[in-house]
Amino acid sequence: MLSKINSPADLRQLPRKQLPQLASEIRRTIISTVEQNGGHMASNLGVVELTLALHLTFDSPRDALIWDVSHQSYTHKLLTGRYAQFSTLRQSGGLSGFTNRGESEHDYFTVGHSSSSVSQALGLAEARHLQGCDDYTVAVLGDGALTGGPVYEALNNAGRSQAKLIVVLNDNEMSISRNVGGLSRYLAKVRALPRYRRSKRRVERILRRIPGVGDGLAKQVAKLKELVKRVLTGTTIFEQLGLAYIGPVDGHDISRLRAALESAKLSPRPALVHVHSTKGKGYPNAEAAPDEYHGVSPACAESGQSYTDIFGEALCGIADGNSQVCAVTAAMALGTGLSDFSQQYPARFFDVGIAEAHAMTFAAGLARQGMRPVVALYSTFMQRAFDQLHHDVALQSLPMVVAVDRAGFVGADGTTHHGLYDVAMCAALPGAQVYAPVAADELRSMLQNALQDDKLTFVRYARDCAAQLSPDESHGTFDVHGSGDCTIVTYGRLIHEALQVPGVRVLRLRRVLPIDPAAVQAVLNCRRVCFFEEGIRTGGAGERFGAMLAQAGYTGEFKLNAVEGFARHASLAELLAEHKLDRAAMREALQLF
Amino acid sequence: MLSKINSPADLRQLPRKQLPQLASEIRRTIISTVEQNGGHMASNLGVVELTLALHLTFDSPRDALIWDVSHQSYTHKLLTGRYAQFSTLRQSGGLSGFTNRGESEHDYFTVGHSSSSVSQALGLAEARHLQGCDDYTVAVLGDGALTGGPVYEALNNAGRSQAKLIVVLNDNEMSISRNVGGLSRYLAKVRALPRYRRSKRRVERILRRIPGVGDGLAKQVAKLKELVKRVLTGTTIFEQLGLAYIGPVDGHDISRLRAALESAKLSPRPALVHVHSTKGKGYPNAEAAPDEYHGVSPACAESGQSYTDIFGEALCGIADGNSQVCAVTAAMALGTGLSDFSQQYPARFFDVGIAEAHAMTFAAGLARQGMRPVVALYSTFMQRAFDQLHHDVALQSLPMVVAVDRAGFVGADGTTHHGLYDVAMCAALPGAQVYAPVAADELRSMLQNALQDDKLTFVRYARDCAAQLSPDESHGTFDVHGSGDCTIVTYGRLIHEALQVPGVRVLRLRRVLPIDPAAVQAVLNCRRVCFFEEGIRTGGAGERFGAMLAQAGYTGEFKLNAVEGFARHASLAELLAEHKLDRAAMREALQLF
Repeated sequence: MLSKINSPADLRQLPRKQLPQLASEIRRTIISTVEQNGGHMASNLGVVELTLALHLTFDSPRDALIWDVSHQSYTHKLLTGRYAQFSTLRQSGGLSGFTNRGESEHDYFTVGHSSSSVSQALGLAEARHLQGCDDYTVAVLGDGALTGGPVYEALNNAGRSQAKLIVVLNDNEMSISRNVGGLSRYLAKVRALPRYRRSKRRVERILRRIPGVGDGLAKQVAKLKELVKRVLTGTTIFEQLGLAYIGPVDGHDISRLRAALESAKLSPRPALVHVHSTKGKGYPNAEAAPDEYHGVSPACAESGQSYTDIFGEALCGIADGNSQVCAVTAAMALGTGLSDFSQQYPARFFDVGIAEAHAMTFAAGLARQGMRPVVALYSTFMQRAFDQLHHDVALQSLPMVVAVDRAGFVGADGTTHHGLYDVAMCAALPGAQVYAPVAADELRSMLQNALQDDKLTFVRYARDCAAQLSPDESHGTFDVHGSGDCTIVTYGRLIHEALQVPGVRVLRLRRVLPIDPAAVQAVLNCRRVCFFEEGIRTGGAGERFGAMLAQAGYTGEFKLNAVEGFARHASLAELLAEHKLDRAAMREALQLF
Repeated sequence: MLSKINSPADLRQLPRKQLPQLASEIRRTIISTVEQNGGHMASNLGVVELTLALHLTFDSPRDALIWDVSHQSYTHKLLTGRYAQFSTLRQSGGLSGFTNRGESEHDYFTVGHSSSSVSQALGLAEARHLQGCDDYTVAVLGDGALTGGPVYEALNNAGRSQAKLIVVLNDNEMSISRNVGGLSRYLAKVRALPRYRRSKRRVERILRRIPGVGDGLAKQVAKLKELVKRVLTGTTIFEQLGLAYIGPVDGHDISRLRAALESAKLSPRPALVHVHSTKGKGYPNAEAAPDEYHGVSPACAESGQSYTDIFGEALCGIADGNSQVCAVTAAMALGTGLSDFSQQYPARFFDVGIAEAHAMTFAAGLARQGMRPVVALYSTFMQRAFDQLHHDVALQSLPMVVAVDRAGFVGADGTTHHGLYDVAMCAALPGAQVYAPVAADELRSMLQNALQDDKLTFVRYARDCAAQLSPDESHGTFDVHGSGDCTIVTYGRLIHEALQVPGVRVLRLRRVLPIDPAAVQAVLNCRRVCFFEEGIRTGGAGERFGAMLAQAGYTGEFKLNAVEGFARHASLAELLAEHKLDRAAMREALQLF
């Protein structure tokens, strides 16, 4: 049946009673594809009915559906003409695992970071309002995204808007890990609200029946009625910010979802529809352990240990001997390897929710009081905390360690998730240091050293399984391999490519920022220096190295291969080749052919 | 009397009845100093009594007082041993206009950006909790700061904390400009809450008196009582996030403030004290027009027009002919010159509050629907929107113009406000362009061109009065002045310094990012190239230029003078000299002596 749906219009033709069958076909398709290709399982299984209801109620792409993070957009993809390609999900040249402007007119934005949907939708809706267009704009976000500050900033602005904006809160009581903070407790209360509202009606009935027992009392009772009325309208945070609140609605009941969405359409002001759904619905394993099934990806095949695992293990070891060491993360405890830490040292473990900005400033507060916080997050999400790193950490001269996971190309997660910008971003942070370990032991010792240093130190590493390369045991800022008149300069995992190029000297930066002038001196007599950087060119280490060469009076040839712009999703090997960073490109650059 | 207070301990010795006199002495001191030195007038006059109450109730620095933005910390400075130096406020070598770690042990953080105090305080408080220390940590923030997402992220985490944290919300119904959004309306409601609470007590009395008229009804009435009770506790957003709520309290009544703060100390969970104050209290002009008195600084003396003015005027002109043009700002309408625009085009003007992250993504939404948004903000505050510029604008290939005011050194506002990092930050944004006009006409034409381009374009300019330098009329990416064997390369207002250096060629980058390879070619035959950058060295344009020289095979001398680290507050001339960026340093670098 799914194969016959080429657009939401086809969906709307379908007899209502066939929808449950369609939903289970969608679930089967998602399960088999994700088991094959990796990807997000539980979040997508949780929104099958919601997505059906949205496409039945709204007329996409005229009405805009904007998915927060968009890791939950698989059903949306299946219903908008992408069923035939769905088996290519996350594969090179295939469908993206997220919404993508280049892929379909139904995808309004290319998204992968959290908590942006309400801002995007409000902008779109205000523009439409100005243009006299009455199409709807719908933002769909999870309760995890709601812990992110930008959503709150946007809701605060939406509260006064006259645009046709609808926010759908898909509350599954989870972000990537279990939700944290006051807000999640609050949502649980709101989910119980219908009971209150029912009581309210009952109370009003009672009040009507209470006999007038003297004038004074009658007046007081009237006041009471007024009070109850005023207090019961506007009880949710969303209403307090000025939105109409509708819900909670069962997220797996298509008719009720449609009714709620239709009533949101009629609201004279922006409305929030509170949907209560089950993450992983229809897939028993995912329902039982949805955080583990948030993103499904193949495990480390050979060596058994990823840098992520090693980091987690090493930090536990360090924390054992140093009671000042704390770990802070922003809904990435599992992804950054902190699960064991969180169990072994629960008092010193802080998962702040999807709130990188707060995470960093909060850690600065810990550091200010003498603790030694290690903030662990993904390179791409660290972008959220640039100002906090600058103003709240670097400016305070506070010691802080940031463990930057998913550095460099990430493969199948693609464009929005590549860790290609952190080195350039850190350059704008006065006094920051960036280290790039390339083997298990090196990660351990760099982490240990960083925690003894009184600086802001980033230790960045790829998602890879840890390499077997035996690292230089020194604590220097660079190391040199081989000899020759031409030198390849690089850092991070590109060392493994460089070491495969015959007849060339390789200088590897262990510390990428600041670059040690001695490293520049070490290549000053080379005829040819080629810098290879798995990161953005502008602002990166390669430019810095080149400028230092020029200042040192270097007169040979200098070449810089680095990433320009954004990168697509593909395998690491493909991406390295495409961006001229693999051993073949290195040979070519050095004209060794 | 003020001259005798060398520490909060002295304050606590003072007879209570002398406090009003002390308050008015403080006000006189603030008014005369700010009239002399510039600075923040209204916000400081609004918190005199609050600051007295805080220092009477808490034992700083054992208890930590953390000021959000800290532009309102003048009274705090006066009470913590800095009265004698107060006349040096904002002057070179004198007191900072903000809290500063180097200045006093009573200043926990060096601050100047908004909405970070709750995160800082929570971090500090959690650390103290872990260390078994029972001192208090108090964050003081305005209602303006409350519109910033990081505060919400922090409150969400504070709701579950067991640390000794108190948040004081100083609600003066203003941020820099009048507050916007659902939240400010909401706070107005909360300020009316005592009426509800009084009603609640009255209602409970009534309910007790209602006669039992039949068993069924009695039961219903009992239910009603329960309902009213449950609904009336936990009505504020703060309580919903898990904090205890105390207030609202009159922000100019020291005894009531003390009582409220004492009761916050007794709260078993983090408490929020809601203070209602009058911005500019005691200074009639500031009370009537507090936004104009937010920051007081001398006006443009000679030429009459600052870049800020020119930008505002130019944008109005462009908007007149193009109904797609919108303006977006984050509580900086006045400071970025958008007041006229907001009055002439109210429908196309969006002040989102102190919410740079949302501002950028919201503008991306406008652009996605075909509008042409111009986001106007200060260089330093743009740091808050790095990820949004990256993920929500650059990645979407959306056309967007960002007007970056206060670029370069800002003088008296100092460390936290210098605009020295935007050029390096923008380098990490794929596809971004940065233009640096140095004269009125140039700003106008660059803005015009940027709005015709389909790229993400930054137009950055200093706070200065517009220069009279007649700009090259071309729309090129650089221009060359004079001739010689040595070339100074620079951008922005340093051109005015460079043109004063005799016997040297000057190449000025009109477009700082990307750097035109033709500009590099134009200096390739020079014996000596000196790049001067009023911005951070690492990641900046100078490094990029140097790397391009190296790649182009340049064999002469290359020198780069740029800013290292952070900079203090001082006059522009002092700062340029200190960082070796003035004409004297240029002559020295070129060895022309």
